[in-house]
Amino acid sequence: MAQPTVVGVGMTPFGAHDRPLAELFGEATGAALEDAGIGVDGVDALYLGNAMGGQIEGASHLAPQLASHVGLAGVPCQRFEDACATSSNAFKHAVQAVEAGRHDAVLVGGVERCTPETGLDTAAMTTEFATAMHPQYEQPVGLSFPGVFGLLTDRHMHEYGTTEEHLASVAVKNHRHGALNPDAQHGREITVQDVLESPVVASPFHLYDCCPFSDGAAAVIVASADAADDLAGEPVSVSGVGHATDVVPIADKAEPGATQAARDAAAEAYDAAGVGPEDVDVVELHDCFTGAEILATEALGFFERGEGGPAAAEGRTELGGELPVNPSGGLKAKGHPIGATGAAQIVELVTQLRGAAGERQVRDADVGLAHNLGGDTATTVVSVLEVGA
Amino acid sequence: MAQPTVVGVGMTPFGAHDRPLAELFGEATGAALEDAGIGVDGVDALYLGNAMGGQIEGASHLAPQLASHVGLAGVPCQRFEDACATSSNAFKHAVQAVEAGRHDAVLVGGVERCTPETGLDTAAMTTEFATAMHPQYEQPVGLSFPGVFGLLTDRHMHEYGTTEEHLASVAVKNHRHGALNPDAQHGREITVQDVLESPVVASPFHLYDCCPFSDGAAAVIVASADAADDLAGEPVSVSGVGHATDVVPIADKAEPGATQAARDAAAEAYDAAGVGPEDVDVVELHDCFTGAEILATEALGFFERGEGGPAAAEGRTELGGELPVNPSGGLKAKGHPIGATGAAQIVELVTQLRGAAGERQVRDADVGLAHNLGGDTATTVVSVLEVGA
Repeated sequence: MAQPTVVGVGMTPFGAHDRPLAELFGEATGAALEDAGIGVDGVDALYLGNAMGGQIEGASHLAPQLASHVGLAGVPCQRFEDACATSSNAFKHAVQAVEAGRHDAVLVGGVERCTPETGLDTAAMTTEFATAMHPQYEQPVGLSFPGVFGLLTDRHMHEYGTTEEHLASVAVKNHRHGALNPDAQHGREITVQDVLESPVVASPFHLYDCCPFSDGAAAVIVASADAADDLAGEPVSVSGVGHATDVVPIADKAEPGATQAARDAAAEAYDAAGVGPEDVDVVELHDCFTGAEILATEALGFFERGEGGPAAAEGRTELGGELPVNPSGGLKAKGHPIGATGAAQIVELVTQLRGAAGERQVRDADVGLAHNLGGDTATTVVSVLEVGA
Repeated sequence: MAQPTVVGVGMTPFGAHDRPLAELFGEATGAALEDAGIGVDGVDALYLGNAMGGQIEGASHLAPQLASHVGLAGVPCQRFEDACATSSNAFKHAVQAVEAGRHDAVLVGGVERCTPETGLDTAAMTTEFATAMHPQYEQPVGLSFPGVFGLLTDRHMHEYGTTEEHLASVAVKNHRHGALNPDAQHGREITVQDVLESPVVASPFHLYDCCPFSDGAAAVIVASADAADDLAGEPVSVSGVGHATDVVPIADKAEPGATQAARDAAAEAYDAAGVGPEDVDVVELHDCFTGAEILATEALGFFERGEGGPAAAEGRTELGGELPVNPSGGLKAKGHPIGATGAAQIVELVTQLRGAAGERQVRDADVGLAHNLGGDTATTVVSVLEVGA
């Protein structure tokens, strides 16, 4: 089995882009190739994440089209869609292909446009996102993503006393981090008061508890350690990837607030990497809503059940705290172009583990963890990356 | 490396179905599990093919939802979309996972609804399919699939003298085969005259040169040879899978009629299997249009360039001929529920190689080949299956 590494990363700024998917993908890919010190002739395959190009932009079968756009025609190309976990699933398959010795170096790319630049306003886009709800049991009653995560978070508040102030502290932290990230969509700081005074979207979430709609792309070059030896990019080892799903619809989950798929995926990733939550130095996790970050920090084993809210409010997860979570700004401030998010988490972890994150650098970061979920927490992929392992 | 085998297959009849995707998927999966003699507790993962659920039916993130529907919640689930090659790409990844020893037994399922039962008429559905055209270079000029394959076929006619009668003979043959397949959408025979007198859809194609819109599902259980030893289903070995892409858009292809991705994918599959075209006993190939079958029989190495048309007209590819092509009826008569087609080809090959195809049985069939293409021939997956190897 070959040791998979990440040898190159790149991304566009996240935000609103009046440019086609191919151009965004090309910009991120070009940066990743340059970082790796490799040309397209050294890339054996494309693993593409795009969640909703067909329904939002009338653009399906994107894998060979985007490959052609960057001069990579001919190699095997495949597109993945697993809602918001789309490009982390593409990453998983790329890692497995390199590990199995099938390919030496592959491109993982995620790209999506979700802002009004697509021609769809916020209401229409929320409806498109809601296609990930169960078609028979959830869509007919109008459930959409703020509602789903509102339900999960409400339950957590009921069981553990998590408060709206705890939630708001996650948004404040991630905006503070995002202000240090030049690629983040939201570069301005906010206060707990700002969050609590913003309009309610779906109880208990105010507007500032919710991540934005975003356009953007992220790209990652995965190569075997042997192949990486010949490349310029500083390699970061992928030491474990876990992938699990949970029952759909949400009403059938045994304990909705547990986000069981995250627990299962984390256990698999920790086991593969031979590390535990206590070894992790930096985390990029799926904070589509503030409550989702609190649930995730517990599911990943960083805090006991019910401790995630107080931990966030006490600053334990901010830069300089005991375990910095979402130094990039996370989905909340960096932005959330659905199919690009999983790949962008890997971009941030690699940047952090290389010590190249500038103002938002986490000190002594040797072990990083990415957590990317899709749908009503039904799909979760957890990846552990390491330097000097 | 473990030897991947197919140990169970199942499918719904193809045609118009007024039932949700989950029910179609469940019917095919239940049949495949029963055929394999395995329960869902013996299945380690789901590799799902669905091309357009998000845009056609407002149903995305289908992998965990469909897994839950069949009692398979929890395992890693991933959805692939590569236009009409969607579920053969899912099959490829399932085979690779078993080969790498990552899983012992996995479910590959393909499901799609494309008939007016979805609420979309033929014109609207053609527009949905056209999302696989290049968004900047092809969609704006109104190119759709009959046009794409019409262009490729026109070129072939110009270069090699292929005639409309040659094309029609493919339709006649596949309808004849489909009449022997109880799961086929079109169970009635037609004549060359019927084809030539049917309305022109996109020159040189008449209506009967074109496959229908279809609903349906197909499912395949892939297991290691060791795991298969403990199961009831008669295993068929997967001895090679090839996957290649070609440049997009069509105007950039070096030689459009060559369908280069098919040649590259076939070379990879033959090499992996250690066989050549002369060893193949039965073929299921992607006859979305009659011209596509003729191009494919040449690209796969069964006939020289330009000989595909006469070979079809001479009956060399019909049941009882030297190399039966599409004994199932193919896309043309069996039907073409996009995301189910690749998996359904595997269902037919396994049925043929087991000698269980009844009236449409190909004699002495030991080596079978499936060819599934997506988009303007940009994605092609070729699989070689064998018994007694």
